[in-house]
Amino acid sequence: MPRYRLTLEYDGSRFAGWQKQRDVASVQQTFEEAVQAICGGELTIDTVVAGRTDAGVHARGQVVHFDLDRDFTPDRLRDGLNFYLRENRIAVLDAAIVDGEFSARLSATARHYLYRILNRRPPPAIEAGSVWHVPVLLDADAMQVAAQRLVGHHDFNSFRSTECQAKSSLRTLDALDVRRVGDEIHVTTSSRSFLHNQVRIMTGTLKLVGEGRWNADDVSAALEKADRRAAGPTAPPEGLCLMKVDY
Amino acid sequence: MPRYRLTLEYDGSRFAGWQKQRDVASVQQTFEEAVQAICGGELTIDTVVAGRTDAGVHARGQVVHFDLDRDFTPDRLRDGLNFYLRENRIAVLDAAIVDGEFSARLSATARHYLYRILNRRPPPAIEAGSVWHVPVLLDADAMQVAAQRLVGHHDFNSFRSTECQAKSSLRTLDALDVRRVGDEIHVTTSSRSFLHNQVRIMTGTLKLVGEGRWNADDVSAALEKADRRAAGPTAPPEGLCLMKVDY
Repeated sequence: MPRYRLTLEYDGSRFAGWQKQRDVASVQQTFEEAVQAICGGELTIDTVVAGRTDAGVHARGQVVHFDLDRDFTPDRLRDGLNFYLRENRIAVLDAAIVDGEFSARLSATARHYLYRILNRRPPPAIEAGSVWHVPVLLDADAMQVAAQRLVGHHDFNSFRSTECQAKSSLRTLDALDVRRVGDEIHVTTSSRSFLHNQVRIMTGTLKLVGEGRWNADDVSAALEKADRRAAGPTAPPEGLCLMKVDY
Repeated sequence: MPRYRLTLEYDGSRFAGWQKQRDVASVQQTFEEAVQAICGGELTIDTVVAGRTDAGVHARGQVVHFDLDRDFTPDRLRDGLNFYLRENRIAVLDAAIVDGEFSARLSATARHYLYRILNRRPPPAIEAGSVWHVPVLLDADAMQVAAQRLVGHHDFNSFRSTECQAKSSLRTLDALDVRRVGDEIHVTTSSRSFLHNQVRIMTGTLKLVGEGRWNADDVSAALEKADRRAAGPTAPPEGLCLMKVDY
């Protein structure tokens, strides 16, 4: 039974997140129904995904794997799924057959996210749903300096959702960079794995620095406290996008 | 009575174009209603616009002017309109008071457009409605070479809609550039003014070159014929965006 690895792009604003849930449209459910449709039937698909994105979070390089009792060439699988998914704002960018050891979740060596802040007084017209609108001018350089306090191996307990189910809150953050791009501020970050809401809490905390309410030492202090209440607020989901997963 | 000049951003997929029409949502009507709303009343607003964008065409730097029998500071006018327009995917980026000689349409010295082609086999998920999806690989370099045949002062009769109402089809095209940006091809163009559908017909014609069906000489021949039937098809509206107007 071949194992397929697919790379997905989706507009997260249409979905209540990746994970299947009762009575709401999830990316996983919509995707699995497309796989069933092209197989013409009643088979169970168990997808494993690299990043279980929350409601409103987008993906340009999500990776998923599943075993399927059908022999598709990768190109036919990709094109067939894109035909079924064409009204759903989900696209299969790439498909491959991989060996049975591969796991979209466990084999990942790095996950790369982009968080987009629209930093201008007027609200977004074109980018609505894809950016966090922050009307007050942020100091991107100060955010970049403070961000470096979070890079490295740390206990990120202050920077995860209280509902995070990971056993350990120790993580190694490979990169966290903040730069201004026109009237946007881009926060890019890479790690082998992230805790639940980690990127959004890091971004919400760095925004306090950008506003001049916090400095880099405050960020270090929040990290040291290892308590969710010590860090800043969780940035909204719509600015976040899973860009790429390395294996 | 002060004259106001405003710069607008809008998502054209929500509207049947700039121009007011019966029974459909236009950018102009939605915008004029917002001006009436912040004035609290029954006044007539006559907006003049730099580019009368078609249905589905976007703007990041549309310019409009109108006279208004109210004294707003520019910032208050901008913020007030953005409050009324916040659910309409129209944003006022900038407002200024200008002298009574200024015309958003007639004072413009250059208009700058971007046409985005998503050139990959999978359809767009995130960019749906903002790009023309062309699944066959296009040769952007060949398109760039052929594009130069259109730059300069020419009779663009082949490159305008048969419904175009301009008296003359003579125009000076200042720039027309084609380049690959990741999996997109960007066609950027500048002119003092464009004929109706000119950018979309130029793009549709250059696509024939990108596919290898036409070469640069075919583009020159189409231009010389001065007949709409001689040029390529009109590219769809959703890839087009009015980026900036110079004065």
